[in-house]
Amino acid sequence: MTVYLVGAGPGDPELLTVKAANLLRRADVVVHDRLVSPEVLALVPPWAELVDVGKRPGGSVQQSAINAALVDYGSRFDCVVRLKGGDPHIFGRAAEEQIALGIAGIASEVVPGISSALAAPAAVGIPLTTRLAASGFTVVTAHQDPATDRSLDWEALARLGTTLVILMGAARATAFRDRLLAGGMDPLTPVAIITDATLPTMRETRLRLAQLGDEPVANPSVIVIGAVASLDLRSFSSTSPETIMKTTV
Amino acid sequence: MTVYLVGAGPGDPELLTVKAANLLRRADVVVHDRLVSPEVLALVPPWAELVDVGKRPGGSVQQSAINAALVDYGSRFDCVVRLKGGDPHIFGRAAEEQIALGIAGIASEVVPGISSALAAPAAVGIPLTTRLAASGFTVVTAHQDPATDRSLDWEALARLGTTLVILMGAARATAFRDRLLAGGMDPLTPVAIITDATLPTMRETRLRLAQLGDEPVANPSVIVIGAVASLDLRSFSSTSPETIMKTTV
Repeated sequence: MTVYLVGAGPGDPELLTVKAANLLRRADVVVHDRLVSPEVLALVPPWAELVDVGKRPGGSVQQSAINAALVDYGSRFDCVVRLKGGDPHIFGRAAEEQIALGIAGIASEVVPGISSALAAPAAVGIPLTTRLAASGFTVVTAHQDPATDRSLDWEALARLGTTLVILMGAARATAFRDRLLAGGMDPLTPVAIITDATLPTMRETRLRLAQLGDEPVANPSVIVIGAVASLDLRSFSSTSPETIMKTTV
Repeated sequence: MTVYLVGAGPGDPELLTVKAANLLRRADVVVHDRLVSPEVLALVPPWAELVDVGKRPGGSVQQSAINAALVDYGSRFDCVVRLKGGDPHIFGRAAEEQIALGIAGIASEVVPGISSALAAPAAVGIPLTTRLAASGFTVVTAHQDPATDRSLDWEALARLGTTLVILMGAARATAFRDRLLAGGMDPLTPVAIITDATLPTMRETRLRLAQLGDEPVANPSVIVIGAVASLDLRSFSSTSPETIMKTTV
């Protein structure tokens, strides 16, 4: 009796881990989020129970109800998979579910997944880090508990010098722009918006920080902010590396 | 003729993506780093050429030589896998290799991998983010070009309020501690050091920021700094969530 909190990756079923794919094949129950792609859910065998607890905006499934459902399934079945978009510990509330399971005496194990924070930039030719332009990266979300949100130091975020990746930021793109600009970030900082990353419907927009939010941002999108966001290493052919780096720093 | 820049994940071969495992099975040549685990390399079929370009400290294989080798293999074989520990775009210098391949007219594609920045904390029960204690995370490395290193704002890093993950920081743990303390980070901030993450030889140490570097840090290690670093959700059983959170914030 173990509940596996499994990262489903960004959408493309080939970006599941081998471990995740094996667990899906032998699961008795799969409890999944809204952000898990239909292509991944298609891997769940017909005899397994498939439970959709996707929290839609203004939706009805509360976290406490999800916790209770996991405890219930975990006490009745051998192999329960709690399938979450991306990686379970990146804004996935896996910690709360692990605590609820622990209180009930049910074992849990986290299987990491490819976060869209990593996969989305890679899919459009953006390196999250490079020795020349970005010495690290920071991932934040716009879907925060307001109390927690205040724990972010926006001025520090604007000054930090790492690539900034915003997950689930579509609805609050303008607020992010305003807070980063107020923190002193250059309005010309390159921005890339990647929607439906790694899926056949993937699309991308490149712009500058000052323009972020002028057009509505579709859901689900990954927003990448920083020098690397103007790069596209897929299409790179004969330009010299020096030229590329000049345009981005 | 495509060179696939593939993330090998943190060590455990089950944490390869399905796509990475499939590519390894049909590769003509696999060019790999030092950080790719023997367990993963064991998946390469015997007919494929296995090339070790691991850069050891003070070692001999220059990045320019690796670039040249990839161009050479890419022009002679159908399926070349450039296998990198973790994720190719997280301090993996994949960007430089993609540029070299692009100049030579050779197609490249990045296959993201599970970074040890995500897998190491998960393996010891640490959630990178939680709604209660960490609203984001930042990943940096200690193996920087000194010029790029200066682009990091250490005071901002100390103030930011996200979980901080340091990759390849073993040799410079004391320097990190000193710069973070100088930037104003609380000396009592919890720290976890995870060595050989996800492998049978994995081990972990928990301490406080002020103690980081007092004992030598083994290589390869992932260093996690922040409130979440004192959590261990694997062993959590009957303590109330309130108690857990009180000990960490």
